[in-house]
Amino acid sequence: MSKKILIALGGNALLQTSEKGTAEEQLAHVHETCKHLIEIINQGYSISVTHGNGPQVGDILLKNELALDRFPPMPLDICGAESQGMIGYMIERSLDNSLKGAGLKIPVITILTQTLVSRNDPAFKNPSKPIGPYYTQAKAQAQEKEHGWVMKEETGKGFRRVVPSPQPIALIEAPAIKELSDEKMIVIAAGGGGIPVIQAADGTLLGVEAVIDKDHTAALFAKDIGAQVLLILTDVEQVALNFKKPDQKNLNTLSVSDAKKYIARGEFGSGSMLPKVESAVSFIEGGGQKAIITSLSQATNALNDKAGTRLVRS
Amino acid sequence: MSKKILIALGGNALLQTSEKGTAEEQLAHVHETCKHLIEIINQGYSISVTHGNGPQVGDILLKNELALDRFPPMPLDICGAESQGMIGYMIERSLDNSLKGAGLKIPVITILTQTLVSRNDPAFKNPSKPIGPYYTQAKAQAQEKEHGWVMKEETGKGFRRVVPSPQPIALIEAPAIKELSDEKMIVIAAGGGGIPVIQAADGTLLGVEAVIDKDHTAALFAKDIGAQVLLILTDVEQVALNFKKPDQKNLNTLSVSDAKKYIARGEFGSGSMLPKVESAVSFIEGGGQKAIITSLSQATNALNDKAGTRLVRS
Repeated sequence: MSKKILIALGGNALLQTSEKGTAEEQLAHVHETCKHLIEIINQGYSISVTHGNGPQVGDILLKNELALDRFPPMPLDICGAESQGMIGYMIERSLDNSLKGAGLKIPVITILTQTLVSRNDPAFKNPSKPIGPYYTQAKAQAQEKEHGWVMKEETGKGFRRVVPSPQPIALIEAPAIKELSDEKMIVIAAGGGGIPVIQAADGTLLGVEAVIDKDHTAALFAKDIGAQVLLILTDVEQVALNFKKPDQKNLNTLSVSDAKKYIARGEFGSGSMLPKVESAVSFIEGGGQKAIITSLSQATNALNDKAGTRLVRS
Repeated sequence: MSKKILIALGGNALLQTSEKGTAEEQLAHVHETCKHLIEIINQGYSISVTHGNGPQVGDILLKNELALDRFPPMPLDICGAESQGMIGYMIERSLDNSLKGAGLKIPVITILTQTLVSRNDPAFKNPSKPIGPYYTQAKAQAQEKEHGWVMKEETGKGFRRVVPSPQPIALIEAPAIKELSDEKMIVIAAGGGGIPVIQAADGTLLGVEAVIDKDHTAALFAKDIGAQVLLILTDVEQVALNFKKPDQKNLNTLSVSDAKKYIARGEFGSGSMLPKVESAVSFIEGGGQKAIITSLSQATNALNDKAGTRLVRS
């Protein structure tokens, strides 16, 4: 019986920031990523996949912006849905091809995913996640006035819209995702953390203009499918204390209690390592067996305890 | 035991051409559409849903165009994937809410869908399906030169890109779609006819710049899930001979053999009624019990043989 693993792909699995972001470039990265996914499958794991959508949803937002005199802009939840289609397709087709190339017959399925958040989440009172293009101060003020956006200055770069980043509560499509995962299909879901929806008192779901951290959602996804392992892939090999300082200390293991201590003292960058460590902690505390944070190239080594940072219960 | 029905939604289920196409407008139409879907469910059917994507993918293409100096344009297959995410989300959430409102507990799932076509399909030698914005002659010639696009003039409107519209052969995700449909989930799939892919000799799937008719794909989808009924919804109540002429004759029933005769003599508009009749014929010939073409508002009447046009075996 194979172990279930949820793999959370970072932005660099799809796009390098130095590139233009053509379909060819993105597909080349996805192809490279899929080679590593095949290695993980060959180690006996049943995989499911989730992924970020930052650069892609940024492009969609900027295109909306450039087309404003022709088209009404689409709200952020719909842009997120678009990005799930786009990225899901690239990963699904590429992974399907890689599986065939490796002589493996495993269906790959992409499920559009909505993620429930609470309308009472404090994030809605304190929008903090920057999205979309940079604006001049004048343009930023106009956007605040016209759309009610909250704009924040980034020193030297200009003004950018910030949106709430609420905590994920549940994946609306969890039953189908689990069903297909149990049938040994590879499920790609909850892209970009899922499309954020809130629930009205009568049960009605409403889309909201927010962004959910994909690593936070990954912990939920992993739990929903009953994964034994959560593997969070990023662009560094290990979690570190004093990151990028002379006394940087890479961690082979990190206990839940130490992780909480380090989180509290601000060791990890918000929007980068912090949500990954939080996700790993949440997964282990929720009963998960193994949570690993590492780079794509070290993924298989990390699964064999030879690389990466492993969260341990105590 | 409930009967399975596949419902193919026309463009007007989402967007009226007279509108701007804001998210609010589209969601209002989807909400209206979902009321009818609930009526069908209440008649004892297990539904699955497919839909067109013409206006939406047109908007995505034009946005690509307007952003050309900032972003590399995405190929048509990726734009189709984006539209599946966008439209699937709107239908799924709205239907989910309508179901709750009707006291029904049925999960709704959107599956990203690739549709296999043949690289030898004659359509690739004769691109005929217009997509995206209109261009001046000079701009059209520049596009032909730069991207190798095939451009066609539409009298009085300008030049437009035309792409191949090959026949669908198979839905790549059919096993998962059937699995979820068998589990009594409502599956939304094959939006816009599915993302067109061809298969190389080694089995590799490649995206192609083409558009598959969503009604043709609907017949495949219906067969794949073992639907007894295929319901094709459009903006007229019945199939007609001499459409929009003084001697227009609406049809209550249409036999497969008559349909083929009428198709041969060009009774039905290509890109409008023709693919619907072809799809209905194909479904009945493939062993389907009932194929109906009608309007959204007449859907339940048509299922009770009181409206619409029903394809009959002979």
